[in-house]
Amino acid sequence: MSNKNYIPFSRKAYYYEADGMGIVHHSNYIRWMEEARIYWLEYIGYPYSKVEQLGLMIPVLSAECEYKYPIRFDDEFEIHLTLIDFNGVRFSVEYSITNKTADKLSAVCRSSHCFVNKDFRPARTKRDFPELYNVFNDNLNIEF
Amino acid sequence: MSNKNYIPFSRKAYYYEADGMGIVHHSNYIRWMEEARIYWLEYIGYPYSKVEQLGLMIPVLSAECEYKYPIRFDDEFEIHLTLIDFNGVRFSVEYSITNKTADKLSAVCRSSHCFVNKDFRPARTKRDFPELYNVFNDNLNIEF
Amino acid sequence: MSNKNYIPFSRKAYYYEADGMGIVHHSNYIRWMEEARIYWLEYIGYPYSKVEQLGLMIPVLSAECEYKYPIRFDDEFEIHLTLIDFNGVRFSVEYSITNKTADKLSAVCRSSHCFVNKDFRPARTKRDFPELYNVFNDNLNIEF
Amino acid sequence: MSNKNYIPFSRKAYYYEADGMGIVHHSNYIRWMEEARIYWLEYIGYPYSKVEQLGLMIPVLSAECEYKYPIRFDDEFEIHLTLIDFNGVRFSVEYSITNKTADKLSAVCRSSHCFVNKDFRPARTKRDFPELYNVFNDNLNIEF
Repeated sequence: MSNKNYIPFSRKAYYYEADGMGIVHHSNYIRWMEEARIYWLEYIGYPYSKVEQLGLMIPVLSAECEYKYPIRFDDEFEIHLTLIDFNGVRFSVEYSITNKTADKLSAVCRSSHCFVNKDFRPARTKRDFPELYNVFNDNLNIEF
Repeated sequence: MSNKNYIPFSRKAYYYEADGMGIVHHSNYIRWMEEARIYWLEYIGYPYSKVEQLGLMIPVLSAECEYKYPIRFDDEFEIHLTLIDFNGVRFSVEYSITNKTADKLSAVCRSSHCFVNKDFRPARTKRDFPELYNVFNDNLNIEF
Repeated sequence: MSNKNYIPFSRKAYYYEADGMGIVHHSNYIRWMEEARIYWLEYIGYPYSKVEQLGLMIPVLSAECEYKYPIRFDDEFEIHLTLIDFNGVRFSVEYSITNKTADKLSAVCRSSHCFVNKDFRPARTKRDFPELYNVFNDNLNIEF
Repeated sequence: MSNKNYIPFSRKAYYYEADGMGIVHHSNYIRWMEEARIYWLEYIGYPYSKVEQLGLMIPVLSAECEYKYPIRFDDEFEIHLTLIDFNGVRFSVEYSITNKTADKLSAVCRSSHCFVNKDFRPARTKRDFPELYNVFNDNLNIEF
């Protein structure tokens, strides 16, 4: 299932994101995943600022990327993402990053996360933050 | 098997590497893996400069990290790595990142790479760069 | 004099751009200046890709920033810039960075640059690249 | 006057710090200044952790760099610094960054700072943190 009104996250690669090989350094994809995730959180009605107001943080438990095609400075890229897993405490997101300028799939990535409170203790959203819980559940397995 | 003379890669986390949660941003681990890899390449006798002199580059095919314990600004961390796979063209490296200040395992990571020439075409090291091939083979499955 | 059609460079601050104090790390302003400069180069008809096609690069000779008001994660900022000096080889740019979310002037910055060829030798644009020379001259002292 | 026992801050440039021109991106010098400053704070007996324990932070008021000679990946650089100004609340630091591999002065930089408390209000160290005040005064105008 995919979402019709959502405008996917996209921007151009910055000059300082390219490395000595002339291509975007692979570590920046991990940062782009975060940009896309935060953009998506805002779209589904839970901007990170709102998460923080609830006294929550969302650290990263794991991140991975398979790189398929380089992105160069000034290339436009687009990120589609899907919440593929959510159990109230942890969740996982899958990303596909496309080099729009070259019209090629650039990377397939995944990250997993945990809702924690200010002491870095897991937060049980179903019990303590039901609205947040419902929003995440409603958006499970939808491609954005 | 582990290597006796090798001094593992270590340094302190920089102030600018920590994020709004007060912990090192997860993307920096991907950069640290590169630092440790380049340090190790120098130790085994193939500094990246020598690789470049052969007309080769080593792009990243995949990278992944499982985060277990945070690292804060000024914490000292140490990275051990093992070349776990090498077929003459591609290779894989496993990393364990320890927070020495907290005496905790911080992350377990992995990356895979490919030797390519200046046109980003795979380089067959066994045939074309036998010395490089032998050095990599000699260091396979040794923990550094 | 200011330019009427130009849409100033603006975006939100990314999560990974904030540091342990919860505010955007000051080094990122230097990167934002570059983003704004490249955006402006495209607007005046000399995208960096065109500069590179001429065999030119634009290294930075100096950069400076006076920080006045912090920018936090997710704050929107806007950058206005003015080419304040150009002699055919070197040029200087002034920037004002505004925190739009807080409606405060965040920083006043300046950078100077040099056109060089692939050997990092100064390029005399008036003689060798008159079109580029004219575009820069036409946009001198105009606030964007 | 210069300090005899101090080992100046030095390290190699990382691969990911170089940009598409093959030289270290100018924004990283601003980060290196911070690395050198924190290293020096530790040497003079006021590591940043101790500053934070006093409830203080040290935001940057201004930063500037004049770039003279590039630094490439794997080049070793060294940073000397001098506290050139201190009035109890604000201070300024001057840096010279040398490319040791090329044996060339790479950049001359300066930054100014302010001691603030957790609310970002200026802290009067002479009155409230006399030990810190004295350490800074004792190290004024000494080249490290």
